[in-house]
Amino acid sequence: MKKQFAVIGLGRFGGSICRTLSDQGAEVLAIDVDEDRVNEFTSIATHAVIADSTDETVLKSLGLRNFDHVIVAIGDNIQASILSTLILKELGVKKVTAKAQNDYHEKVLRKIGADQVIHPERDMGARIAHNITSSSVLDYLELSDKHSILEVVAGRKMDGRSIIDLDVRANYGVNIVAIKQSGHINVSPRADEIVNKGDILIIIGADSDIDRFKKQMLENE
Amino acid sequence: MKKQFAVIGLGRFGGSICRTLSDQGAEVLAIDVDEDRVNEFTSIATHAVIADSTDETVLKSLGLRNFDHVIVAIGDNIQASILSTLILKELGVKKVTAKAQNDYHEKVLRKIGADQVIHPERDMGARIAHNITSSSVLDYLELSDKHSILEVVAGRKMDGRSIIDLDVRANYGVNIVAIKQSGHINVSPRADEIVNKGDILIIIGADSDIDRFKKQMLENE
Ligand SMILES: Nc1ncnc2c1ncn2[C@@H]1O[C@H](COP(=O)(O)OP(=O)(O)OP(=O)(O)O)[C@@H](O)[C@H]1O
Ligand SMILES: Nc1ncnc2c1ncn2[C@@H]1O[C@H](COP(=O)(O)OP(=O)(O)OP(=O)(O)O)[C@@H](O)[C@H]1O
Ligand SMILES: [Ca+2]
Ligand SMILES: [Ca+2]
Ligand SMILES: [Ca+2]
Ligand SMILES: [Ca+2]
Repeated sequence: MKKQFAVIGLGRFGGSICRTLSDQGAEVLAIDVDEDRVNEFTSIATHAVIADSTDETVLKSLGLRNFDHVIVAIGDNIQASILSTLILKELGVKKVTAKAQNDYHEKVLRKIGADQVIHPERDMGARIAHNITSSSVLDYLELSDKHSILEVVAGRKMDGRSIIDLDVRANYGVNIVAIKQSGHINVSPRADEIVNKGDILIIIGADSDIDRFKKQMLENE
Repeated sequence: MKKQFAVIGLGRFGGSICRTLSDQGAEVLAIDVDEDRVNEFTSIATHAVIADSTDETVLKSLGLRNFDHVIVAIGDNIQASILSTLILKELGVKKVTAKAQNDYHEKVLRKIGADQVIHPERDMGARIAHNITSSSVLDYLELSDKHSILEVVAGRKMDGRSIIDLDVRANYGVNIVAIKQSGHINVSPRADEIVNKGDILIIIGADSDIDRFKKQMLENE
């Protein structure tokens, strides 16, 4: 059987979750107290209803106890976020993801049983900051405290050299897992592949090795 | 010379950018109209000042024209966000990143010269939704419209098999670029490496190939 999702709160965060889940073909019940916001989602979600999620009777009548995963995307009204999460967990919803405004909010959400707590603004701020300190780093994925995958722009020092000639694995302990050249992505680059200035390289390695690689091969161009 | 950053608006988004930039050793000027918010950042940023960024004279006297990159992290007050961005570009700031509340806001920001426009809540919503539709996908990095890197959990069907035996490259066009096993990350997995249920695999490929791989090797466990 298909998993049943519900999103409570259709602001930018909850709305985006609702849209993306629906785009992926998921069954989504969209809920908000605000009629206008609900109307925006009638043609996007499987069902869209006007309801106050702090009202236990309403959540019961909507059958929320049978949902696999409910996302509480209420922000400013911290009390409503907490009360909704509490009711959902008491109804027996298996997984509840809740948006937190601050550390205190997160602590309370976890205490009352939220399974996942998200800080969208804070987390996106950290991502952006990582991307902008180095103009050569376009994006990244943290694999662990000490390992990452980075999307970097090849500069002057790499221009016209082959992967085997650069030998970043031996020199820095970093692997080039893909190369993006003029819109095309090569996910199995060969050793004799030539890197050109402006190409985008996807590299993987320990953060310390990647830092050395960035300092010596990418920065101060 | 070290790059000079300024962050205007010290809410959760701007505050997180300010903290992360400072953690990375960058020079950061933190600006907000709200005294309490500025006080929070006096010990974090290089400088923290109370100022209204819609006041051109103030921005001039703070020497903002000489900054390399200014982030406008004002949200709710769309008019202040737009006016601040306009003044910064007129002063000659090379790079201005601005937070947008909606598509209309983004359009105006771009028209007046913003170099980068961010929708933190929307983008984080999309990331979260991608992570929750498939319980086997922990995280992802979009490389293009059609290619991604995914962090997935190996399931029953992969348990005890070697990378060469699974041959996901030939069978699905997908590459395994790293394996996380009991906290350790191997960024150059060998062909005879054994995959165990619960191991985390970092895979790269075309989205359509990755979808096939997920459906056949990971889902419905
Ligand atoms: N008790 C409630 N039941 C259902 N929906 C609610 C409840 N309280 C608030 N909401 C809805 O949650 C949504 C998100 O609330 P929030 O205060 O975070 O607004 P927002 O700032 O527009 O959201 P975002 O930051 O995601 O853009 C709003 O659409 C609001 O109507
Ligand atoms: N003209 C201005 N000059 C300087 N700072 C401003 C100006 N207008 C607003 N700010 C500051 O921008 C910050 C972010 O504003 P916003 O309205 O987005 O608040 P927020 O919702 O708390 O932010 P976030 O969504 O990042 O948590 C606030 O701290 C506010 O004081
Ligand atoms: Ca909000
Ligand atoms: Ca991760
Ligand atoms: Ca806000
Ligand atoms: Ca990207």
